[in-house]
Amino acid sequence: MTEEIAVVPGDGIGREVTPVAVDVLDAVGDFEFVHAEAGDEVADEQGTPLPAETREAVETADATLFGAAGETAADVILPLRAAVDSFVNVRPARTYPGVDAVQPETDLVFLRENTEGVYAGHEAELADGVTTCTRVVTEEASRRLAEYACEYAPEGFTVAHKANVMRVTDGLFRETVENVAAEHGVETDAALMDALAMHLVENPADYDVVVCPNLAGDVLSDLAAGLVGGLGLLPSANIGPERGVFEPVHGTAPDIAGDGVANPAAAVLSAAMLLEFLGHDAAGERVRSAVEDVLEDGPTTPDLGGEATTRAVGDAIREVVR
Amino acid sequence: MTEEIAVVPGDGIGREVTPVAVDVLDAVGDFEFVHAEAGDEVADEQGTPLPAETREAVETADATLFGAAGETAADVILPLRAAVDSFVNVRPARTYPGVDAVQPETDLVFLRENTEGVYAGHEAELADGVTTCTRVVTEEASRRLAEYACEYAPEGFTVAHKANVMRVTDGLFRETVENVAAEHGVETDAALMDALAMHLVENPADYDVVVCPNLAGDVLSDLAAGLVGGLGLLPSANIGPERGVFEPVHGTAPDIAGDGVANPAAAVLSAAMLLEFLGHDAAGERVRSAVEDVLEDGPTTPDLGGEATTRAVGDAIREVVR
Ligand SMILES: CC(C)[C@H](C(=O)O)[C@@H](O)C(=O)O
Ligand SMILES: CC(C)[C@H](C(=O)O)[C@@H](O)C(=O)O
Repeated sequence: MTEEIAVVPGDGIGREVTPVAVDVLDAVGDFEFVHAEAGDEVADEQGTPLPAETREAVETADATLFGAAGETAADVILPLRAAVDSFVNVRPARTYPGVDAVQPETDLVFLRENTEGVYAGHEAELADGVTTCTRVVTEEASRRLAEYACEYAPEGFTVAHKANVMRVTDGLFRETVENVAAEHGVETDAALMDALAMHLVENPADYDVVVCPNLAGDVLSDLAAGLVGGLGLLPSANIGPERGVFEPVHGTAPDIAGDGVANPAAAVLSAAMLLEFLGHDAAGERVRSAVEDVLEDGPTTPDLGGEATTRAVGDAIREVVR
Repeated sequence: MTEEIAVVPGDGIGREVTPVAVDVLDAVGDFEFVHAEAGDEVADEQGTPLPAETREAVETADATLFGAAGETAADVILPLRAAVDSFVNVRPARTYPGVDAVQPETDLVFLRENTEGVYAGHEAELADGVTTCTRVVTEEASRRLAEYACEYAPEGFTVAHKANVMRVTDGLFRETVENVAAEHGVETDAALMDALAMHLVENPADYDVVVCPNLAGDVLSDLAAGLVGGLGLLPSANIGPERGVFEPVHGTAPDIAGDGVANPAAAVLSAAMLLEFLGHDAAGERVRSAVEDVLEDGPTTPDLGGEATTRAVGDAIREVVR
């Protein structure tokens, strides 16, 4: 049966890199693509950044390829993560031969809790000038994330937390994740997220897989993007029990949007994660290694010091993948 | 009138570096030192990590020099910050000639909100396995921090926030800080804390003073410690309306505690911040530049590749300062 992939390019360079990723998917498999709109532009036109058709397309497709959204990003990507009941955001951050990096020995994967924490959306103004955000941590969500982590990293992982201050919430997070890991015989070490930020900058090679509460995962994975040479290379996967949304970590890049020179690597690597999610492991691996080849041998886009266009890099990747 | 300084060495290397800082203060001014205990050791002996006498000493002294606390750190330093009504934690992070750094061009100061956010201490278990931490952001605390920031950095600063997700709380933080800055004619630019984590790693020289909510300041300042060569060099100042607590950012360093080789630079630089807080600007400057000289010319402790003891480095600093 042909699998259905929803394609939501969004705004800015999302509109430039997503078609490249679609072409690469088309080259390695037999998919039906359903295009849908989201983001700032559609908000201007239709009054909402996430039209009902788009949400439905994502809810029914086998997987979704998302590009980027601008000012409305939170109103697009958070509901889309929820639409597929995504409980984990997988964010690999590694360096590549031929790409300059602040820390060339970086090869990390962040497994970010994707449903709660400060993202639970419970904010209030209790009195004039007195506001609250209720951060939620449940055993269930922590357990679900931990089960995934044990399967993903049977050789062990680091648990990020701030349980010395948030004893109840991050205490529950840490304890639950550690208990699940112990049940599976998986080794863990715990790290305070502040100290971890320092150690990741100094010695990223000391770490491998890092399991994080939602906001910690947001910040630490962007920190890691800084280590490996920027967001242009980072893919991510929002994994749910049945569906997933795959998106480059980068945003709309207004400074270069429209110029046709955005680096499509993150979008194509997100497509590789999509392939693996659907069980097409060999195809995913082929795409990933094609991206590596092109990063090393060129052509490359201006962010990596080259002069090639998005399209030219995409063509080169497809050339190798075929 | 002789000023009174409470000295709370705490645990681990706090007990080794704090006496060095006291000796340096003694060399440049006329202070009365009041010694007090806090931390893991005293908790074992007296059942509390922060005895009433210690809190009182800090509440009545003109300023406090704090070392480090171990497992009980949160139960020591958070109440001590509150004891002096400290509304801002000032954390400079810069590189020094002669000290290896991941990013040698780093010269940052974080002004961290020091009373609220997730540190407000409102956590609950609402049901079995369902916990909350109520993050508090008030206009008053944001305004107080912003007034300080405008005086500290009249040439402008960056405001860290995550207002795209925490619209109400970080929205209030951002808006209040920006409004206060505008009232003072101080320029600001706002940065999402995740994107800022990446940019600080890639291009720290693009930033100068960063004003942060409490937890963001905790994490981003530790990230910056990674950029400049580790926590061994970072001082900090908890500033209240009348009193302050000055502490190295590093912890107890159990791996080297007792060996007498901890780097006293962060403690001595904290003492320099204390001097400036008390209005002894020239003395503060002399201490700071003595530390710089010794960092450049040696002797240095093993963390910086040297073989000197804490004491020897302290003696060298005093030699220059005199
Ligand atoms: C756009 C924003 C809501 C989002 C997040 O905070 O999750 C982004 O920063 C990300 O990490 O994908
Ligand atoms: C010990 C801990 C409570 C403290 C904090 O989170 O503020 C520490 O990390 C710091 O930054 O001084």
